[in-house]
Amino acid sequence: MDRRSFIKRAGLGGATAVAASTLAAPAYAQGKRKLTMVTTWGRGLAGVHDSAQRCADSITAMTDGALEVEVKAAGELVGAFEVFDAVSSGQADMYHGADYYFVGQHPAFAFYTAVPFGMTAGEIANWYYNEGGMAMHHELGELFNIKSFLAGNTGAQCGGWFRKEITSPDDFNGLKFRMPGLGGKALGYLGASVQNLPGAEVYQALSSGAIDGTEWIGPWADEKAGFQEITKIYYTSGFHEPGAALSLATNLEVFNSLSPAHQKIVEIAAGESHQWTLTKFLAENSAALGRLIAGGVQTKEFPDSVWDAFGAASQKVADENMGDEIFKKTFDSVRASMARSSKWDDLSDGAYLRQRNRVLGI
Amino acid sequence: MDRRSFIKRAGLGGATAVAASTLAAPAYAQGKRKLTMVTTWGRGLAGVHDSAQRCADSITAMTDGALEVEVKAAGELVGAFEVFDAVSSGQADMYHGADYYFVGQHPAFAFYTAVPFGMTAGEIANWYYNEGGMAMHHELGELFNIKSFLAGNTGAQCGGWFRKEITSPDDFNGLKFRMPGLGGKALGYLGASVQNLPGAEVYQALSSGAIDGTEWIGPWADEKAGFQEITKIYYTSGFHEPGAALSLATNLEVFNSLSPAHQKIVEIAAGESHQWTLTKFLAENSAALGRLIAGGVQTKEFPDSVWDAFGAASQKVADENMGDEIFKKTFDSVRASMARSSKWDDLSDGAYLRQRNRVLGI
Repeated sequence: MDRRSFIKRAGLGGATAVAASTLAAPAYAQGKRKLTMVTTWGRGLAGVHDSAQRCADSITAMTDGALEVEVKAAGELVGAFEVFDAVSSGQADMYHGADYYFVGQHPAFAFYTAVPFGMTAGEIANWYYNEGGMAMHHELGELFNIKSFLAGNTGAQCGGWFRKEITSPDDFNGLKFRMPGLGGKALGYLGASVQNLPGAEVYQALSSGAIDGTEWIGPWADEKAGFQEITKIYYTSGFHEPGAALSLATNLEVFNSLSPAHQKIVEIAAGESHQWTLTKFLAENSAALGRLIAGGVQTKEFPDSVWDAFGAASQKVADENMGDEIFKKTFDSVRASMARSSKWDDLSDGAYLRQRNRVLGI
Repeated sequence: MDRRSFIKRAGLGGATAVAASTLAAPAYAQGKRKLTMVTTWGRGLAGVHDSAQRCADSITAMTDGALEVEVKAAGELVGAFEVFDAVSSGQADMYHGADYYFVGQHPAFAFYTAVPFGMTAGEIANWYYNEGGMAMHHELGELFNIKSFLAGNTGAQCGGWFRKEITSPDDFNGLKFRMPGLGGKALGYLGASVQNLPGAEVYQALSSGAIDGTEWIGPWADEKAGFQEITKIYYTSGFHEPGAALSLATNLEVFNSLSPAHQKIVEIAAGESHQWTLTKFLAENSAALGRLIAGGVQTKEFPDSVWDAFGAASQKVADENMGDEIFKKTFDSVRASMARSSKWDDLSDGAYLRQRNRVLGI
């Protein structure tokens, strides 16, 4: 996909949206205004639907209902993967979702959720608010007629559930493993037979032996899915989504039609939800991990040789997109920010946590 | 200090505030309203004044100026340590500051900034939003006629600058070291001669040898202070303030007089600023650390034996306040939350960062 095609596409989206905005003009008058937020989440999906709802409720409450945001779960107005086009075209006003679902629209959208061997939640927030991330998100969104803000984060996702222990990269050779997205592509380079099953089929596939393992989200969601009933081997740290961010995107004409105060409310509500969602996952994942361990689950870490292979494969996947100038510019910006902040982070939080947890025995 | 004296004090504060609110009644009418935010920060003080200003600007912008928040730096209306009483009594509408300055009002205020061997920024946010922290902050604030929200975080503060390397806890015996607050108290138990110098005198004291070392904040502020001109020995990780939170507190009558929409705006602006401030410190500390190292500064970590001694001394300091029921309840809540979340945090973010940074060599 080259840049021209995005611009052309964005142009079409823009035209549609302008038409929509003209049709909808009476609703833009002063007073109450309903905004429809479509999402990539099933209603009630742990953490992520909560994150969308928090954004909606914050905006409604802070505008005293002048903007009343109604959340439509995936399938209620459009399907999960249709939310991008719906908002780009003006069919819906905003979406809350994971931008890496939209790498088909542009590969650089991956950076606003997670890329293999990429940033943790704290690092992405630093990059986003201080080192150019938000400006790049806006530039990319404008090509598609949307205004995006980070609006949630699940924290690091787990390495996954395996029927057998992993002792070397060779163990991935021929392994039937469920992992979508760029992470799955990277696993393919290790020889894995990567399965992209819909969520509803994963439990049954793991249980029957149709797959040898699966990643899912983290202890909170994984426990609900019930994988601990099938295997006790749980790799807690993974390479593929080290801090999966969620976005709130508004149709650009809709956003521009808001008063400066309401625009600021959308921005600050999204930022607050990024932090809140992250803490919600930390709290719930921590509690669930305790229950899983009490139930006999063994937490594991991949050996260094496997991490080395993950790193090489992740670089290979990134390299495939480097021909796209926006992807490359974003990759370079992310990598530079990560290299800058990781040293201080390790010497401060990292060193402190190692010592405090050792001394307190927690 | 027993609980009764706080309640009595709060009662007095409340009475004053009610009087102030009666006097100020016309300003409460619909339309524009000016709110004065006093702070514990000198105007322009790196990061922390920015955090106060961000809260003020967000509230002003989100209310379209219906609430216009004016920031008064320390000394402009009242002194840094007088902001609490000024807001409690209604002399000022809000303060932005570090609540541990107000341990004289109640020792439990320490938990809303930092306690030795306490929480990192991510852990305190988790505790605050999910595990009872905010409710306890409100309960404590109500005794003093204020409504408080976390509104910033500096991240982990540094161990400090030393004229000689530290190889065992004995090296603190007789060491003249500048460290205020509970951390300084803990160092006293290691035999240090703890100096509580005003900021403006620290450089000169270290330079002349009047003190053997000092903690300050982190690379960003430390570089500005110029300690690298005096010694190159920099302990980056410290035990005393592992994630120093900042608070936005509003006089309770003023807060209750706001519309629900404006109350929500204050709450969400504060929460967003907690995250934003943390990222700002991460970005600036990271950049400054790079410059300090390039200039010959050697980053060091205390050995295990020193961390063991820090841990024991921190517990001793905490134990001194356990007779106060609010302090004990808060300590127990913080410790339980920390123990719950630290395992998952280490198995996810911690394990990932160790491996990613090793593989990428960053």
